[in-house]
Amino acid sequence: MSLIVQKYGGTSVSDISRMMHVARKIKATQNAGHSVVVVVSAMGHETDRLDDLAHQIMDNPTPRELDVLLATGEQVSIALLCMALHSMGCPARSYTGAQVAIRTNSVHTKSRIEHIDDEKIRADLAQGMVVVVAGFQGIDAAGNTTTLGRGGSDTTAVALAAALKADECQIYTDVDGVYTTDPRMVSDARRMPRVTFDEMLELSSLGAQVLQIRAVEFAGKYNVPLRVLSTFKEGSGTLITFDEKSMEQPIVSGIAFSREEAKLIIRGVPDKPGIAGQILGPISDANIEVDMIVQILGDDGNTDFAFTVHRRDYEQAFAILREVNDELGAGGVLGDAKIAKVSLVGVGMRSHAGIASTMFKVLGAEGINIQLVATSEIKVSVLVDEKYLELGVRALHEAFRLHEDPYEEEAERRRLRA
Amino acid sequence: MSLIVQKYGGTSVSDISRMMHVARKIKATQNAGHSVVVVVSAMGHETDRLDDLAHQIMDNPTPRELDVLLATGEQVSIALLCMALHSMGCPARSYTGAQVAIRTNSVHTKSRIEHIDDEKIRADLAQGMVVVVAGFQGIDAAGNTTTLGRGGSDTTAVALAAALKADECQIYTDVDGVYTTDPRMVSDARRMPRVTFDEMLELSSLGAQVLQIRAVEFAGKYNVPLRVLSTFKEGSGTLITFDEKSMEQPIVSGIAFSREEAKLIIRGVPDKPGIAGQILGPISDANIEVDMIVQILGDDGNTDFAFTVHRRDYEQAFAILREVNDELGAGGVLGDAKIAKVSLVGVGMRSHAGIASTMFKVLGAEGINIQLVATSEIKVSVLVDEKYLELGVRALHEAFRLHEDPYEEEAERRRLRA
Repeated sequence: MSLIVQKYGGTSVSDISRMMHVARKIKATQNAGHSVVVVVSAMGHETDRLDDLAHQIMDNPTPRELDVLLATGEQVSIALLCMALHSMGCPARSYTGAQVAIRTNSVHTKSRIEHIDDEKIRADLAQGMVVVVAGFQGIDAAGNTTTLGRGGSDTTAVALAAALKADECQIYTDVDGVYTTDPRMVSDARRMPRVTFDEMLELSSLGAQVLQIRAVEFAGKYNVPLRVLSTFKEGSGTLITFDEKSMEQPIVSGIAFSREEAKLIIRGVPDKPGIAGQILGPISDANIEVDMIVQILGDDGNTDFAFTVHRRDYEQAFAILREVNDELGAGGVLGDAKIAKVSLVGVGMRSHAGIASTMFKVLGAEGINIQLVATSEIKVSVLVDEKYLELGVRALHEAFRLHEDPYEEEAERRRLRA
Repeated sequence: MSLIVQKYGGTSVSDISRMMHVARKIKATQNAGHSVVVVVSAMGHETDRLDDLAHQIMDNPTPRELDVLLATGEQVSIALLCMALHSMGCPARSYTGAQVAIRTNSVHTKSRIEHIDDEKIRADLAQGMVVVVAGFQGIDAAGNTTTLGRGGSDTTAVALAAALKADECQIYTDVDGVYTTDPRMVSDARRMPRVTFDEMLELSSLGAQVLQIRAVEFAGKYNVPLRVLSTFKEGSGTLITFDEKSMEQPIVSGIAFSREEAKLIIRGVPDKPGIAGQILGPISDANIEVDMIVQILGDDGNTDFAFTVHRRDYEQAFAILREVNDELGAGGVLGDAKIAKVSLVGVGMRSHAGIASTMFKVLGAEGINIQLVATSEIKVSVLVDEKYLELGVRALHEAFRLHEDPYEEEAERRRLRA
């Protein structure tokens, strides 16, 4: 018998019939012999509704009172979910963040969990209860209600799993796992049975977002086995592992992409120490986040400096860069807001050279021009013209044979050897 | 400077614009130099909405979880009301029942307040804060959320006023005070500037319901000056006093009435000791509440026994009484579900005989037949045919000159004497 923490998001409990469906899943888990702790979010768009009420009163609602207000959303969910379990004869008890207690610091609307008291939960589990905990909320040392920020319920679930040393933390959502790339773009995209923690971080931040990055980091820190599953579709989802030494690890795990990119280039910058800071300083002062950064020193001792920003910041960044260009006496500013980013992600890249060159060959064979390249230990990202995005992703997915299950192949090979 | 506890009901905070209106009233009270503690109910029909969600899941929602669910309604209100006060530059802080703490017993959905911690509230008031407390809810010794039952916010307000030894507990509602009778029925019904605690109890239970009876009893027990006022109309409302020795007390204070009555009579019951218990026992076993009871011994040694029940229980009570009639060998059962009750209420009756006979004369002069009479120290109630209700109430209101202010008359008399 193992201890499982399950988290159900707002879409999973958006009405009473979905609430009943979730209760049936929980009961089935308990019937299979497991102890179950459930973390649940506010129903559907309840948090947005409450937030809107607050903003009808003030542009910047008082953070302490906003937390008191928003925390009611999850409190409604825990009570209703317990009733749903009771209606099926499944013993269950609800706890707010304050009741558990989930102790946080006092930074209202984005507090951090500091400690979780687990006595009540353990006592209830020992009695065969399902324990239902309100996500997203906690209590500070002075007894004030706090919240963890949007998506904080994932963090609550992972923190509870860590405190209880749970065997698995299952995040139920409306996707049934992490895919090799977006199935809406590549029809034979494959659900990965497992993905490493580092790959997951890269895939999240690159757009294949199914989990809160903070929750994944938290899981990594406390080594909590994390599984992403669908509330609405049966299946074993994707397990996020922290063991990167697996022999079976494929070289490339998945392909992330983003359309929201814009590229800026300032040419012919006199190359001096600190020039990158002089260029990017004013951009960051304007609170514009910079993603990829590339600098190429030309023959003439002048530098071409390129970087990408989110498309919504393009106009502002371009204007700032024009001023910088004039100050530095550089050779002019170019930009393009119609570009996309494609990234190959895989921990296997660490030990395999040549992934980038294969990627370039595949894209070149399709006539796709690469505008910028950036690499890290476990990913290679390229910028391409937006209109080539689908073509590029599909070609790479095919070339790296991501539709095939590497574990099955490995098993096949072993069978042949034996 | 005095300490005032104000309570605003659900209608008073049913939307954001009303919430802002309430905040302005609170701020004005503070600006007038008072310390203010506010108790607030759930917005509009929020409690009903939540209760309905629970009943979509179960016919009898688990009491513990129902309390967790319903308590969110008031929690939303305290947060929004504090924001509304902040938006006007008025410092304020919210507390749930658990945070204050309002400690109750563990009887979920109808718990009783046992103790109120007042340190946090006193500390906030000392800092010039308005303290906003969630009505209706508390916390038991084990840390569970409890609720006080419908209308429990009035009780919260009175209990807080008692604990803080407040100078006045003001209950804001949608009526502007207690009237001599229903102004919708008698156009010159007069708002009473004050009413005694006992009169208020009689007027509440007889249908002129503006306050929860339990809250009024609580106020009486702890001698809390209680004032009923309108949220929407300026005025000084009605003060509920506990001093019955006032010289200025009128004989009759008000007229209460109810249409929801049904009368049952069992005739020719052989008169033996314990006969009343034999008749009413089966009625009370069926959880039917009996109001007026009258027994008349006839010449033949047989008794006529009459009583009233709520109109909704009439059919069931009639059937039970038919069985009792057969068992006792009595002379038959009569009933009438189309009757109304009219009651004169006034602590002055204690020292004035002849009120009942005046009442009978007034009704007789209008041709209204009296079907049943019951009297207590401070009221006289009669049953009349429902169709004569308005006529009777208006005639009595006129005859006892309830449209005239007895305090002004008294003052006038004093002026003339001087």
